[in-house]
Amino acid sequence: MKLIRFGEINNEKPGVQLSNGNKIDVSGFGEDYTEHFFGSDGIARLKKWLNDNESKCALVAKETRLGSPLCRPSKIVCVGLNYAKHAAESGMQIPKEPVLFFKATSSIIGPNDTVILPKGSTKSDWEVELAIVIGQKASYVSEEDALDYVAGYVLHNDISERAFQLEREGQWVKGKSCDTFAPLGPFIATKDEIKDPNNLNLWLKLNGEMMQNSSTTDFVFNVQEVISYISQFMTLLPGDVISTGTPFGVGLGLTPPMYLKEGDVMELGIEGLGISKQNVIDYKA
Amino acid sequence: MKLIRFGEINNEKPGVQLSNGNKIDVSGFGEDYTEHFFGSDGIARLKKWLNDNESKCALVAKETRLGSPLCRPSKIVCVGLNYAKHAAESGMQIPKEPVLFFKATSSIIGPNDTVILPKGSTKSDWEVELAIVIGQKASYVSEEDALDYVAGYVLHNDISERAFQLEREGQWVKGKSCDTFAPLGPFIATKDEIKDPNNLNLWLKLNGEMMQNSSTTDFVFNVQEVISYISQFMTLLPGDVISTGTPFGVGLGLTPPMYLKEGDVMELGIEGLGISKQNVIDYKA
Repeated sequence: MKLIRFGEINNEKPGVQLSNGNKIDVSGFGEDYTEHFFGSDGIARLKKWLNDNESKCALVAKETRLGSPLCRPSKIVCVGLNYAKHAAESGMQIPKEPVLFFKATSSIIGPNDTVILPKGSTKSDWEVELAIVIGQKASYVSEEDALDYVAGYVLHNDISERAFQLEREGQWVKGKSCDTFAPLGPFIATKDEIKDPNNLNLWLKLNGEMMQNSSTTDFVFNVQEVISYISQFMTLLPGDVISTGTPFGVGLGLTPPMYLKEGDVMELGIEGLGISKQNVIDYKA
Repeated sequence: MKLIRFGEINNEKPGVQLSNGNKIDVSGFGEDYTEHFFGSDGIARLKKWLNDNESKCALVAKETRLGSPLCRPSKIVCVGLNYAKHAAESGMQIPKEPVLFFKATSSIIGPNDTVILPKGSTKSDWEVELAIVIGQKASYVSEEDALDYVAGYVLHNDISERAFQLEREGQWVKGKSCDTFAPLGPFIATKDEIKDPNNLNLWLKLNGEMMQNSSTTDFVFNVQEVISYISQFMTLLPGDVISTGTPFGVGLGLTPPMYLKEGDVMELGIEGLGISKQNVIDYKA
């Protein structure tokens, strides 16, 4: 199943994208895609509800805006330097264990919303990433059991201001949390749709030119390892998002480096998780 | 006004601690201390409601557990190395601009709840901190206006596993986000109660012995500077928590270093913000 949310910003409704591509309004189910939904077997309950009610659900018009396909999670945990060639282009070593950082949930936007470069930004960069949506409370989970804790997967552009991240007194969070820096979607693919999350092609184009083109087969730490590892340090809650790192091909790694500017268009995708597209503009007070 | 939350874990009710020390149940007001409450002038509305209804509010029994005095915020933003002597004891330079990191909101507990040392912890440490509760959406706020965005202040013990924080591949979040690592409370003092947040004594005792004893006059970056600074990188939402850093006297800085172990008792306080007390135990599966 493909979960979407659609409508005006901060007033999104839950929906489902059908296998024929049509999108339907499932607000009649009575729940949005929240911690409660994911933590109470909501995906299975919704599927059952659709068996009886799908024909009564209104179609969502093609031009309707998509929001983030989940409500604000308790946290977005990101894995840094999780592809060997990306670590190299960033001038860093391959980590011996996963590097973790957080992204503010206030940075989440819909998949095709506009990305706003923050005031003073000179080094904003793109990062296509496979993100995991957690399906149940996970604490001290083994790698063997880790996939049992997954609700689904979603496409994420982990936009990063490199000067804020790397040149402004320690800790990456500063360059990762700006408003609009986390386009999520178009949809959450429930985990039954993704045969192997560790074998998916992913790519990002800037103004039509392919910048990142790789596969999650190149992970340093795979999905199971990452979930198990994070759960040793903190409890993951239903609906929490883990972003698994970006492959080679970001602006920071180019010679000379190249960063986002007003008028740029990013388009990105992951096999089975659809495509998103963001226009870039400067912040205006 | 002093805002409290009381009752069983995950089932807390909102209350108010009166100037005579009595605690009353204000669930009749119909709102908990959420983003919506802080963002819609809830403090003023509650004060008004109490004028008419205080005498009808039930007393909270003295032995009742206190929870965190606010519902889960969108984020906890922490400032690192914000007291000069603490930077020195940590073997680090005084930063030229604030160092920021996040703490998972899943680490929040009540002020007198038990702190659980995570599996494998050998270097868990205490950190008494003044925390700010944000009262309205703050983006690109000036230092001059910063205090207008404050709802109140709260006592925070920013517990930190130093090995997870400093010895496990970059980014401090790993050592800051363990479950139970953020005791908040006993209460939020609304900002009218705190004459000058940059001139408050704060202290922490371990097993009765004074370990930290300082004043927020020693801030490297004061409350106004910190709010303004963070708001240049991300939007602060109503109810968000900013923890302003810890003074000299943590376990990491002792010779030899000393860390928390099962059976320890931490007691901490800030002028005007009350006292909290946590027993320490090891994680048991």
